Order: sequence, then C-alpha cells, then structure tokens
Amino acid sequence: MSLPVHQSDDDKLREECGVFGIIGVQEAANFVALGLHALQHRGQEAAGIVAYDPKQGFASERRFGYVRDNFTSASLMETLPGELAIGHVRYSTAGSKGGTQIRDVQPLFAEFAMGGAAIAHNGNLTNANALREELIGRGSIFQSSSDTECIIHLMARSMQRSIPERMKDALRLVEGAFSIVAMTRSKLIGVRDPLGVRPLMLGRLSDGWVLASETCALDIIGAEFVREIEPGEMVICTPQGVESAFPFPRRQPRFCVFEKIYFSRPDSVIGGQSVYETRRRIGVELAREAPVEADLVCPVPDSGTPAAIGYSQESGIPYAMGIIRNQYVGRTFIEPSEQIRNMGVRLKLNVNRALIAGKRVILVDDSVVRGTTSRKIREMLEDAGAAEVHFRIASPPTMWPCFYGVDTPDRSKLLAANMSDEEMRDYVGVDSLKFVSLDGLYRACEQEGGRNPAQPQFCDACFSGDYPVRPSDGIQRGFKLKVPA
Amino acid sequence: MSLPVHQSDDDKLREECGVFGIIGVQEAANFVALGLHALQHRGQEAAGIVAYDPKQGFASERRFGYVRDNFTSASLMETLPGELAIGHVRYSTAGSKGGTQIRDVQPLFAEFAMGGAAIAHNGNLTNANALREELIGRGSIFQSSSDTECIIHLMARSMQRSIPERMKDALRLVEGAFSIVAMTRSKLIGVRDPLGVRPLMLGRLSDGWVLASETCALDIIGAEFVREIEPGEMVICTPQGVESAFPFPRRQPRFCVFEKIYFSRPDSVIGGQSVYETRRRIGVELAREAPVEADLVCPVPDSGTPAAIGYSQESGIPYAMGIIRNQYVGRTFIEPSEQIRNMGVRLKLNVNRALIAGKRVILVDDSVVRGTTSRKIREMLEDAGAAEVHFRIASPPTMWPCFYGVDTPDRSKLLAANMSDEEMRDYVGVDSLKFVSLDGLYRACEQEGGRNPAQPQFCDACFSGDYPVRPSDGIQRGFKLKVPA
Amino acid sequence: MSLPVHQSDDDKLREECGVFGIIGVQEAANFVALGLHALQHRGQEAAGIVAYDPKQGFASERRFGYVRDNFTSASLMETLPGELAIGHVRYSTAGSKGGTQIRDVQPLFAEFAMGGAAIAHNGNLTNANALREELIGRGSIFQSSSDTECIIHLMARSMQRSIPERMKDALRLVEGAFSIVAMTRSKLIGVRDPLGVRPLMLGRLSDGWVLASETCALDIIGAEFVREIEPGEMVICTPQGVESAFPFPRRQPRFCVFEKIYFSRPDSVIGGQSVYETRRRIGVELAREAPVEADLVCPVPDSGTPAAIGYSQESGIPYAMGIIRNQYVGRTFIEPSEQIRNMGVRLKLNVNRALIAGKRVILVDDSVVRGTTSRKIREMLEDAGAAEVHFRIASPPTMWPCFYGVDTPDRSKLLAANMSDEEMRDYVGVDSLKFVSLDGLYRACEQEGGRNPAQPQFCDACFSGDYPVRPSDGIQRGFKLKVPA
Amino acid sequence: MSLPVHQSDDDKLREECGVFGIIGVQEAANFVALGLHALQHRGQEAAGIVAYDPKQGFASERRFGYVRDNFTSASLMETLPGELAIGHVRYSTAGSKGGTQIRDVQPLFAEFAMGGAAIAHNGNLTNANALREELIGRGSIFQSSSDTECIIHLMARSMQRSIPERMKDALRLVEGAFSIVAMTRSKLIGVRDPLGVRPLMLGRLSDGWVLASETCALDIIGAEFVREIEPGEMVICTPQGVESAFPFPRRQPRFCVFEKIYFSRPDSVIGGQSVYETRRRIGVELAREAPVEADLVCPVPDSGTPAAIGYSQESGIPYAMGIIRNQYVGRTFIEPSEQIRNMGVRLKLNVNRALIAGKRVILVDDSVVRGTTSRKIREMLEDAGAAEVHFRIASPPTMWPCFYGVDTPDRSKLLAANMSDEEMRDYVGVDSLKFVSLDGLYRACEQEGGRNPAQPQFCDACFSGDYPVRPSDGIQRGFKLKVPA
Repeated sequence: MSLPVHQSDDDKLREECGVFGIIGVQEAANFVALGLHALQHRGQEAAGIVAYDPKQGFASERRFGYVRDNFTSASLMETLPGELAIGHVRYSTAGSKGGTQIRDVQPLFAEFAMGGAAIAHNGNLTNANALREELIGRGSIFQSSSDTECIIHLMARSMQRSIPERMKDALRLVEGAFSIVAMTRSKLIGVRDPLGVRPLMLGRLSDGWVLASETCALDIIGAEFVREIEPGEMVICTPQGVESAFPFPRRQPRFCVFEKIYFSRPDSVIGGQSVYETRRRIGVELAREAPVEADLVCPVPDSGTPAAIGYSQESGIPYAMGIIRNQYVGRTFIEPSEQIRNMGVRLKLNVNRALIAGKRVILVDDSVVRGTTSRKIREMLEDAGAAEVHFRIASPPTMWPCFYGVDTPDRSKLLAANMSDEEMRDYVGVDSLKFVSLDGLYRACEQEGGRNPAQPQFCDACFSGDYPVRPSDGIQRGFKLKVPA
Repeated sequence: MSLPVHQSDDDKLREECGVFGIIGVQEAANFVALGLHALQHRGQEAAGIVAYDPKQGFASERRFGYVRDNFTSASLMETLPGELAIGHVRYSTAGSKGGTQIRDVQPLFAEFAMGGAAIAHNGNLTNANALREELIGRGSIFQSSSDTECIIHLMARSMQRSIPERMKDALRLVEGAFSIVAMTRSKLIGVRDPLGVRPLMLGRLSDGWVLASETCALDIIGAEFVREIEPGEMVICTPQGVESAFPFPRRQPRFCVFEKIYFSRPDSVIGGQSVYETRRRIGVELAREAPVEADLVCPVPDSGTPAAIGYSQESGIPYAMGIIRNQYVGRTFIEPSEQIRNMGVRLKLNVNRALIAGKRVILVDDSVVRGTTSRKIREMLEDAGAAEVHFRIASPPTMWPCFYGVDTPDRSKLLAANMSDEEMRDYVGVDSLKFVSLDGLYRACEQEGGRNPAQPQFCDACFSGDYPVRPSDGIQRGFKLKVPA
Repeated sequence: MSLPVHQSDDDKLREECGVFGIIGVQEAANFVALGLHALQHRGQEAAGIVAYDPKQGFASERRFGYVRDNFTSASLMETLPGELAIGHVRYSTAGSKGGTQIRDVQPLFAEFAMGGAAIAHNGNLTNANALREELIGRGSIFQSSSDTECIIHLMARSMQRSIPERMKDALRLVEGAFSIVAMTRSKLIGVRDPLGVRPLMLGRLSDGWVLASETCALDIIGAEFVREIEPGEMVICTPQGVESAFPFPRRQPRFCVFEKIYFSRPDSVIGGQSVYETRRRIGVELAREAPVEADLVCPVPDSGTPAAIGYSQESGIPYAMGIIRNQYVGRTFIEPSEQIRNMGVRLKLNVNRALIAGKRVILVDDSVVRGTTSRKIREMLEDAGAAEVHFRIASPPTMWPCFYGVDTPDRSKLLAANMSDEEMRDYVGVDSLKFVSLDGLYRACEQEGGRNPAQPQFCDACFSGDYPVRPSDGIQRGFKLKVPA
Repeated sequence: MSLPVHQSDDDKLREECGVFGIIGVQEAANFVALGLHALQHRGQEAAGIVAYDPKQGFASERRFGYVRDNFTSASLMETLPGELAIGHVRYSTAGSKGGTQIRDVQPLFAEFAMGGAAIAHNGNLTNANALREELIGRGSIFQSSSDTECIIHLMARSMQRSIPERMKDALRLVEGAFSIVAMTRSKLIGVRDPLGVRPLMLGRLSDGWVLASETCALDIIGAEFVREIEPGEMVICTPQGVESAFPFPRRQPRFCVFEKIYFSRPDSVIGGQSVYETRRRIGVELAREAPVEADLVCPVPDSGTPAAIGYSQESGIPYAMGIIRNQYVGRTFIEPSEQIRNMGVRLKLNVNRALIAGKRVILVDDSVVRGTTSRKIREMLEDAGAAEVHFRIASPPTMWPCFYGVDTPDRSKLLAANMSDEEMRDYVGVDSLKFVSLDGLYRACEQEGGRNPAQPQFCDACFSGDYPVRPSDGIQRGFKLKVPA
C-alpha cells in the first residue's frame, strides 16, 4: 500500500500570504490572532505573531498549522503581551522535504543598532535572488529562504538613523509586489509597492490603528474601515495618529485582478466594491457571453457560488446545490486497494445524485488551472446521471505564471497554456466549456469600457502575459516572456 | 465518572452518532474510515473502528477527534486488517472534566462464550438506567457509561447459542430508538428499532455488503444504494448474501423528521427523496405560508441554504449570500479585554456589509433552539445597515426535548417552550419571525395531506410533545409529559 | 535499514508490579505518585492512580510511561483529590502488538451494588484462565486481560454485603501469588497470599496509614515503617486504625528469594534485613565458594555492585568500576549500516579501558538468564585488553520459569536449563564461570543452616523447580513440572 | 529574547556542551547520534545534528530533550543522509520563559559565498558581547544568542577565499575557551583554543575520521582513539587524511582541571590517564591529607564513587553504598501540602537505613558548590541514625566563577567564597569537613610536584581565581578579578 497523494486543492492557484497589525489597544496580540484567523484563506501552512511590551521587549511565536489551533491557548498568548503586535499567515506547501522550515515563518525579527524591528510581507520580490547573492558576498548571513530577509539585511546595511528611513532605503532597492506590515518598539508601519499589486487596508479600533490585507479582518474585531493604503504609500501609525509618505516614484496602479476572482474573501470590500458582488457580476457577464439551454445552474462549491448565482439570475435558469462540499475535509485517507474512482475528490465533494439525475447542468467554477479537478467533477456528474454538463468559468484562461506572490504551476502544467479551447473541452469531457472574456471580467470589475490594453487597470499577467514588473529572477531561471523586452 | 456536559455554545440540536459497517472487501477498515468521514457531521467528538481478521482476531482503535485526523495514518490502519469491519462516530462534549472517556467510545467489543462481537449504536435507550441497575445487582460489571454496554450485558446473560439470537433476546428487553451495526467473526449485522427512528441503509460494493447511517457514506466509497433497512428489521450480511428477520412486534414507523430538517446531509436520500430537495421544498412552503416584501433572501449558512433557495424561487425575491461562513472555524479564541460584540459568532460568520447595507433582508434558518445565535446574527445585520430583517424558520417551533439520540437542552432553555411567537420576535429583535407549520413541513416531506394527528407519519416529538416511546428514564429524572399517560 | 531490537535488559528477569496505597492524609494522590516513583524499578511500562474524594467520587488516571513523566503535572494531579488513594506500576513489554492496552493498566475500578472499589495487584494467579472461562460462561464481560479483573468479577457475583467480605469470598477461589492494595470509599485494604510470595509493608505517616510493596517507598514520603503484612493476612485501614484478619487456611510462608537477589531495591528492608546487606553477603559467600586469583573485582552495574563489594572484601582483591553505566539509557538508536559490535550493550555500558587493559578481572553479576548480555560484556572486556575474565554470579543457575508474577522466558531460552556449567562457560567465553550455591544463597539470607529441602524457607522455584503452588494455567498450556504431582 | 536562567536546584557546576563529528562513513548522522548519546552528560537540554549529502545538500535537525528521545526515530534520521555530519549537545536551562530557543541550539549553519558550513562549539568566548556590538553596528543581523554566531559573522566578513581560512581569521579575533567541530561540504574541521581549556579527541573508524569531546564517544561507536587535538591546533579531516595547522601564537596549555574532577565521564581518558583513576587517586590523596576514624566510607552517588573507593583503599575503612540513587529521577513532583522534609533530595537519593544506623560514616563527594545538597544529605544520614558524619571533598573549595564554558553561580552563592572552613562545617552540620588541597589535586593528576604557581599546568580558576584569559565581558558586567590586572 503506497501513501496517498490526494490534494484536490492543488488544482487552484494559491495566495501566498496575509498580514495584520495593530497598535494602541491592550492585548494587541489577541486581536492579531483574530485578524489572522479571518485571513486564514490567504495562507494555511503557518502563522506567526510578534508583540512588543515595554517591560518584556519583543516576543515572537511562530507555528505550523492553523491560527485557531495555535494562537488560542492562554499560556501561549500570555507570552505575547503589549499594545503593539503584527502577524502573518503563510501558504501551504506539499510535503516536509524541501518545505518551509519554522525559520521561514514570518514575521521576521531583527535587532538593529537602534533597536529591534519585526516585518511581515505579502507579495514576492522579483529580484530577491540577485539581492541575496550580492548581500552574501558582502558578509550577510541568511537564516531563512524568505524574501523578507533580503529587506532586513538591506536595512541593516543602510546608513539611515531610524528604522522607517532604513526601510525606505531598502525598499527602493527591491522590485516586485509587496504589502508590508512592520513594527518597531513604538510604531506600526505599513507599505504597499508602487503598483499596489497586493491589498492593504487601514482600520480604526477605539484609539488604536489597524492594518490588514482585507476588510474581513477588520470586521472580525469590530474595527471601522478607514481607507486603503495607496499604491506606493508608507504609513507610520502611532497612538497619536497616522503619518503618510510616498517614498517611491509614482506609477500607474495595477491591482491583482485574481484577488477579485478568487483570493480575497467574498465578504471583503476592495476598491469600494464588494468582492461577492464582483463575482456575481462576472456570472452575469458569463451568462451574456456564453448562454446555453439547461435545467440547473450549479456552482462548484464554494468558490464558484457567487458567479453561479449571477449566471442563474441573468439566465433565469434555477440555481441549485448540485455538488455538496464536505466541511471536514483534511488529511488524505488511505486508499483501499479495491479501486475507488476519484476518491480524492469524493473526500471533499459529493454529487447530489437525486437532484442531478437526468438534468442538463451548467456548472460554474471560478477558474481552471490544471484541469484535473474539473475532469473528475464531470465524471462524478456523469456517474450520477446528468444528461448534459456545460462548464462555465468565471475567469479568462489561466495561461501565465505569477511572479508577484501567488503559487502557480509551471506553464507546462497550465491547461490553457497548452491546449486550444476545443482541446480543453475534450480533455475535461463536457458538452461545452466557456471562459469569461478579459473585457467581460473588467466590466464586472466596474471598468465599464472593458480592459484598456495600452494601460490596463489591473495586473492580469496570469491571463495576458503582460507583466507590469520584469520577473528578473524568473527569467534567470529560464522563464520566457511573451514579448521579450 | 459523571455524565458528560454538552457544549452549550452552539445553538443547534445535535445528532449523537453515525454508524458504518462493511463485509467482503479487502482492507475493510479503510472503507469504514471513509464512510465515517462522510458521516462526521453526525458526531465530531470521537470515532472508533473494530476490524476482524482470521489471523489476528479482533482489533480495535478508538480515538478522540475527527476521523481525518486519526484514521488516515498508515501505521494505525495497518493494525486493523481484514475483510470485515464496523465503525462509529460520536457527538462532541465540552471539556475533559466529566466528559467522555475513551472507554465510552464505540464500537464496544465483548468476548462471549461463543466468541467475540463488536457493537456500534445510533440512538438512545429510554430504559437504560433501569436495565443498568438491574444488571449490576446481578453481578455485571459496567466499564462505560454507554447505553450500548447494557445491550452487551443482556447478550452475555442470554441463554441463546448464537450471537444474533442473543442480540434479539437483548433488544427485546430495551426500549427506545436504535440503529445498530454489529459484527461477529463472520457476520455483519444491522438492526433498526420497530419505529425506525434513526436511519440505516444497505449498500453493495463489488461482492461485499455495506451498512451506513446515510447514503452519502455509500457514495464516498462508490457503493451502490440497495435499500433502507426496514423499521424492526435485523439483517445478517455475509459474503454469501443478506438474511432478514423481524424479531419485534410490528408497529407503525415513525422516522425522525429532524433528520430531514437538519441532521442528515443534503446529498443523502431518505425514503426515496433527496434531503436537499425536502429542505428546498420547506422553503417553498414557508414562502407560501409566510410571505413578506423584501430585497434579498439570505440563508444562515450552511444549514439554511436549501430552504433559502426554495423561498427565493417561490417568492421571486433574489437569493444572495448575505452572511459568509469562515470555513476555518475551530477552537475558541481568547477574547481581548477590549470588548468585541458577538465575538463568538464573528469567528464563524461575517456579514457581507456592502451587499446588506440599506436592504430589506429575509433571513432563512433551519431551526431556532435557544435563540441566542439568531439574536446575534440580527445584531450583526443591523450593524451592517440592513433596513429590515425578517426571520423565516424552516421548521416548527422546537418545544420538547428528544429522548431518542439527539442532544437537546432542557425545556427551560428552549426558546419556543417559554415564549409566545410575539415574545420570540421581540427577543430576537427582528421585524418579523415566522416558522413553517407542522403541516407545511409534512407536505414538504411528501405527505401531501399534511400531518395525520391520529397516526403521525414521523416522530415529531420535539415540535409536538407526542412521544412514540415512553421516556422512562427521563420521567424518573423529573421530565413531565405533555399528556401524562 | 531495519528497525533495531536492542533491549539488553531483556536478559534480566522482570518484576511485574509494585503497589502503593495511603489513607488519612490530604492530597493522598501526591503521596501515591511519590511512592510509585520509588517503586518504579518494579514496573516501568505504565502506572495508574485511583483517588476518592467525598465530593467528586472516584477519579482515576492511568498512563503509559514513567511516573515522573505523567504524575508530576499539577493539572493532572488536581483531578485526583481526596485523602484516600491507591496506585500501581506495571512492567514493560516489548512492542505494541499484543502488548498492554491502557485498559489493562491497574488499579482497576468497578461499581458494585454497594458502591465502587478499586484494586491493584502484584503477583500472578495460577488459575486465572480457568476462572475467566467459567465467569464468561456465566455472563461476565471481561474488559481487560488482567488477572485482577477475575477477582473483580468474583466479587461482583459474591452474595456478601460488604466489599471486604466479597473480597475474601473472591480470594478464597483464586490460586497463586498476590499482594493486593484496594480501596472503597472509606477503607484502604491490603491482602497478601497465604505463602507471602510478594512483599507488602505497612507504614504510618502522621495520622494516616500507608501500604507499599517495599520500605523504600515509605522512606521517600518520610513515613515510618510499622511492620510487614503477614502471609495470608488482610488489613483494613481507616483513619481510626488497622483491623487485621486471616481469611485463608494457614500455610508455611515462602517469600520469593529473587526479591532479595534482584527485584527489590538495595535500600529496602525485608524480613528485618537490608537488601543491600543480603547481596553483599552473597558476594562474601561467593568469594568463599569460588575463589580465584585476580587483580580487580568489578561489578556489572548496577545490580552486581553489592555482591562485588562483598566479594572484594572477602577476597582482599581490590574493588574497581571496570564497567561504566550510561545513565541516559533509553530508546534504541538506529544501528548504522557500518557494523558496530555489541551496539545494544554499548548504549548502556562502556568498559573503563585504561583500567582494565592487562588486568585479570573478576566480574560479578546478580544472575544469568539468557546469557546474551554476559557474552557481550565479556567481548567488550576482551576488546579492552583484559588478561583474564572470571564470571561470578550472585545467584544459583536460573533454570525454571516463574508463575508468580515474574516475567521469565520459556525454559528453552534459559541458559542454565539447557547447558552444563562447562557449556555455559564456553558459551559466555570466560576463563571461569561460577554461581553461588542454593545453600550459600540461603546462608546469605540469614538461614545459617542453608536450605531446608523438606520445607524450604523461600520460594526458589526458578532455581529448584520446586513450585509451592501448582501452576495450573501453565500446565494447561504445556508446561511440564520437574516432578509431576 | 533575554538570556536563559539556569536551573538552580542542582547543586553542581555544569558543563555547557559536547561536540562530535565524523567523515567518511555511511549514515554519518547515526554515528553522530550515538556519539552525542555518550556525551549527554555534557549537556541535557538540547541536541542538534547537521549532515551533508551531495544530492540533498545540508540537512539540519535541532531538538530539545535527550538525544535518545529524538535522534532514534527512523523517519527523522532519514532526513540526515550522507557521509559527513557533526552534532552538539547543550546544557539544561530552567523554563521556557526566557530560556533557550531552538534557534540557539547548535550546530549553527550558514551559507557563505563559497558554500555552506556548520559549526558546533564547546566553551565560551570572553569577548563575545563586544564583538556582537561591533558586528551589529556594521550591519550583521544576529538570529541567536549563541557565541557561535559571532564566529560565523566574523567568518562572513573575512576576505579569505576558503572556509578554513575564514575560520582562522575569525578565531584570531575571539578570546576565551573553545573546542570547535565544524564542517563544509567536504571537510570535517576541529579547532582547540591556544590554552586547550576544553578537550577534543581524534578517532578513526574504518576509513573515516572522528572528532569528539571525550574518548567515551569514540568507544560507543567502536572507533579507535588516535590522539588529542593539541591546544591551538586546527585539523582538517577528509577521507584522504588529516591536515594539521597551528594558526594561533603558541601558549602554555591550561586544560580545565574540573573536567578531571567532575565533567568528563570516568571511562574517558584525558592526557593519557583514565579519568576514573584520577578520581580514585584524589580519594587516596584525601585519605592521606584528611584521615579520620570511622566505620564506613560512602560515596555521594554517582560522582563521589571513585574518590570514595580510593579513600577506602588508602584508609582501610570498608567501602559501602550508604546512599542509593534512584535511577528514574526526572521531573519534579508536586509537593504534597503536608510538608515532607527535603523532598527534593529524597526523589533522587535514599539512605540505606539498616546499614547506616549507629555507624560513623565518611561521606565522599566530588565538590561543594552552594552546599545545599550536602546539608540535606547530612540530615538524611542523621535521620537514619548515623553516629558521626565526616564529609570529604575530592576538590578544593570552589570560590570563583568560570568564564570558559561552565555554568557557575554568582560568587555570592558559592559557599566557599563566603565562609571559612569552620563556618562551612557548621553550615553543613557535620562532625568534620575537609577538602583536598590544590597540590593534592595536582598530584592525583600526575603532577608529582604539585601545582606550579608560576605557571600552573591546568586552568584552576574556579579554585584559585587565577584566570588564564581575561574575562572581558564578565568584567564589563561587574565581575571583580582577584588581582586586578
């Protein structure tokens, strides 16, 4: 009996991180724990919290596993006192071999000549390898494989006399996408890269200030949403107020459109628009662009649900829960030797057989990455006696890897990078397979005129191959740009 | 050594168990693990599996926690070899103090003069206390607080020469609700009490036979659904076939209607009808019985979803996900001293603020038990700026405790047992609050004429106080019947 | 790489248990934990404590592993309140398969019609199998493989009205060796079998009473040693005093001589004599019976130390620590593929090379069971350059298995049961190998005239094959007596 | 992030580390685990192993707890493949609060421009604080509180092109005592400080080379002892052979005499002399310098044993085990509220009452630090009825703290630094109390003429206050030298 490899979830792109920070409230670390719990979907592998208390100094706890399984113990939380704390959740990798080590878990802490600082970061530096090589050559010792450590070493070598100034020095040398939450002994600091690829929100709780990747993390602690940190902005929060600076050359923002499609929680608000509503409107666009006669519109739960509701409303075809998700999904089971078809998917999903039998079903999903799960779901519907299966995808074909903080497979594994639409339909085995268009997607995102190809309003490199920041490290490792610059 | 204290923070009734058994397939225990995983919603506290292998005899593993966290380890599953195995999942209790001990976790195993047997049981005996006292007086030593052990001691004292015959002897002495899965060295046995209160399904996998509480547990292993075990029936499954017997006096069946409302999974089929479809139809009945003008119909996720879809379809008011459920819900977080209103609920649910603000919302839930959660959800909607909130409940008012295997609070804690409809509306604080009628419920359950008061088709004691089996132990502890018999 | 099996300790006989009980002092369970810690050498696999408190009733904790690793946690000990408690330590078995389950760990607790009782037992019943079969036939359900459960079921079936009387009834039906410590809600009970094979001591601490297998367990809590419980005696201790009864027919006592040779701690006192002193005197007898010219007398640590001191004193040959014991011995290491001779022994023992090189060494050990360790130690001495190695054994040849609570290998594995003295010397590979005589042993035990063959003063069946109680279960399983009765 | 608090309940000085490395054998890490097990007495808190394999690169595992409890798992050891590995054991600190963090556990690993290297170190740098401050000022980021990290950062800043050359550069800047074992991808490196304060041994196993703190770690793996690394020597071992260099100015060696008295294992050989034999000879010197009439000579086990044997042999007074050590000593038990006198000591030691009663006892211990344990042992002997108690200490009075890798209390806690001999005798409460003289100690260490005050042969600063290396960091923190330099 061999060990099972049943992670049906690796047929999704994965966000690499979520960040949260708070200053000016008692037991700050408990608020961070709650905020990270609300951001758990952005990273399930590990979480860390650093807190500062004038008496005890900096304290740090970093753990593998869910926030709820670690940062709910009174004895652990008591080791994190103080009114200033930041935290981080990190994505999940497959095995332990070559996987994350606890030293890679953020926030990272460092002692500088003028005092300690802790930094947590969502995003990815596109020139981290080059910077790391340069720094090692000059005598820096790296303790982790985290990009964040590059920023720390750059700060250590800066001649500036304050930590925020050293951070500006350091961030002017890095390229890529970053939303950073950091802290000194008295300041909570937030920074967003000039393109604003990853989100970062500012909130208010009593007399304190909050920074979080998404508004849902403000909601869980009852904080008021103040505004988004702007692309290229650095904010320094103290109980006295929020200072703002723009240390980088100004650029046209390019927020990640995939945050709206899949990464962010549906109850978060981005750019003034409910994420749920954006997704429902993608479903509406999809119904207009790719109509088909059918008996039921069913989501692939849970990520396809809002678009399926939109499709149903626009098309008038009844919405139904044709596929049920098992909420206890977790580790993989041992596959009995007697063959079970699609066991991996069955652990997570089950078809509502009595509902589906004999019906023409429109299945709505948020995206297709490798296509393996789509295929298995189609097989399950077929087994249950569906008369027809029409797949509708609430994003354009995913054809290019992301270099800005999302874990994407190689191009060779991306279904849409290797097959025509017709080939994909045959591979998945459905009666029809349609994606929303890039323009349809932009319309759903309140860009009524669709995408502006001269100056796109979002980062959509995963669909278009149009990379707003040159992926230097990726090119060094052999990645080929669509249009060599 | 006292009885367990039930977790009271969840404002839901709770099923107390799920059972699964299989014979005639290799690595039977692996199939049991999968089946129990599909039945995890019926009991989250603990799980156990007993397997039999001619070389190694009976082997047993019982663990606290989810099936996925225990019965997925190769080293553990290797200790459970053989082609015959049964398993059990058990409900959740609060703490360790006075809580369940591992010896209470089923299946229970006993060595009889003619060989060993293991028994797992879903339901509750209403005369267990009296039987236990009698047995101790005669020299039986009890090792657990489980009802199942009464059955085992009665079997040990039977004069019959085979285990199935001893089981019949024993079950003729017990009263209450039971769906039992048991095994000897060569037989898989299933029994359902004469009223058929709890479900039990028969399935076929290759040359083997399967017994399971619900059809969703047949689906997960790809087994074919054969039929329901009938009320009062005992089946004895061997690789050679299934023998059936009816050892009890025949009675009018009274299946638990709450299985259809809440306990069973929506993708299960009971009495030939999809549970999802029953629930959707309750929503349709509710829309007819209790219409109201509004902008959105929103479910309390996840249990209110099918009824909300039905209500939306019948009323024409758009369906929307106004409340989002955090899928990482788990242990309780430490509440920061700075007050957070409704923190417990926020850990699990968040309002989709941008969607709800200014809207008249119909909120659909499956049931109201204590009413505490309903109240908090209403507050959250109000905070988010809802213009009106109308509660619609997809079951009649829950007024009476269950004595047949469901964990219900005292009558004094049941909102509907202590308040008029008007008082409940005020307590929850909504603009209107309506329950589906008993007749409406029965119509949704395909009893077109509604409930037959002379001979109700279901057990609905929790709504009606009409108990089909006298709750003797309960009466001894002070419970008062609606109509003293 | 295969898994290691390096338990050099299985070349020793192993005691199967230690018992301890206390009444009339606050936090009784804490004293039990200390007492069991002092008795840990009598059983390393598992330990259990049962305590009784009028408010909370009986509470029980049973754990695998050392006392110090389990019963030192404040949170655990708080669950065991009250002024009356008993405890048990249990020997270690090799693997998990077929090994002890937690339900086999004592004390066992049972609810009788007149209230609960807990029982812990050191020894072995020689008719347990026959009793178990009889009881199962009459409807008793066994939950463990422990002999103690036979006693409990016999008590459950007794017609007597008090627990002590039911215990007398039960113990009159059992055969074998037992030293029992038991408790009801108000009494601490001690019983020793009519031959007094296993030890049991009575102590006094403030106003309370203590029962313990050895006096060293009285010392650790500062209790005063009162007297030994007599063979065949039952004592019932309450804060008011100690009642004594002799419920069995009187017999000539036969205390286990191996307790003096190896099982008991050297700082315990048995029969008025220091165990250390007995062992030193065995060394003196050995020096007289088996002298040899040499440079050093070295013990095999730690069990051979007192006899080596005696041998040195009697012979005038200097005593030296030629073999050093690693005090961190524990789990087995993975054997590197590159061969290491005698790795198992090296983990535990190392030769003091600089001391041994070129010397004629007398090595003193307490006993030889399989002879495997002796052989390896000789090889290590040889590698270190010893000029001659003379083995002296502080017990007669071990030739017969024990049926009274000691874990002995099959006769086929006992070196002395299968080889002549000459063959043993060749097998171990030493220059000479001598055992103390039975008479010498008895003289060291203050029987100046040596062993009385007509009526031996001790149980020495492992040396003589003269079994004072017929090993009925053993004979049923094929064991052949020396002289068939 | 503060420095660890040392466990103060143990009245002994404590060695701070042991190191081990091996090259040129398969499964090198398994040998390291065995070697560290043999060196466990040099550090019980934590252990780490780094291994290098050409395919998998460097792998590292660091764990709290005993070697035997961590590095015996096949799944863990499989993550450490290759033919080159080093390891480290570390001393024990009190609690988790402010205690060692896993990142302080050695070996430390660093990636340099020319490749990775791992370093483990036994000793203490006396200018570590000053170096650390300087390095942080220049942009180095420290991740641990370990001295070893200073060496690593100094290496990172060196301009040399090979790791051994960088190590020489770095070590020329540090002051203090160090015995280092390090590794690159192809070399095993050993270095000893110019005074040779801490030991380091070279061994041979098949075609491989071994470095270890003591010879007992060579014995456990069956390696042949080749020679000691010389003070001030660096060796570079490859499968091809051992290169030697002397990168530091030559100085008169000053090996730590306390290694001979207490730290090293009795079965190790240092400077060609058995440690056991040195200790036995100290006992002989002590008998000559401080004779007394008595009935028994008893060691305080286990560290006083060899000196007690020597004292007995020289004086002719019989040697006896008057105090028995419980081999299961471990965590602290919960002290019952009813006071038990001296419970801490009783957990570990028990008096052999029957032996001691009425006797005049000479008690031999290796050293007196705080004197608290000595006092308790005297009380226990008194309780047991000893007629007289004479304490003999196999080392001179411990009056000065160590700055070279030994955990010593403050001067204010050292008994001999604060009391005259008379006062100490009164404090401990014995009939007489005598220490061996410094000259006697040197004679036992084969310096027949005693100590040469002009140029002492050993480091004996803890007795003499004569510090061979200026303790700069200590002086900065307020320590006052005996003779200010």
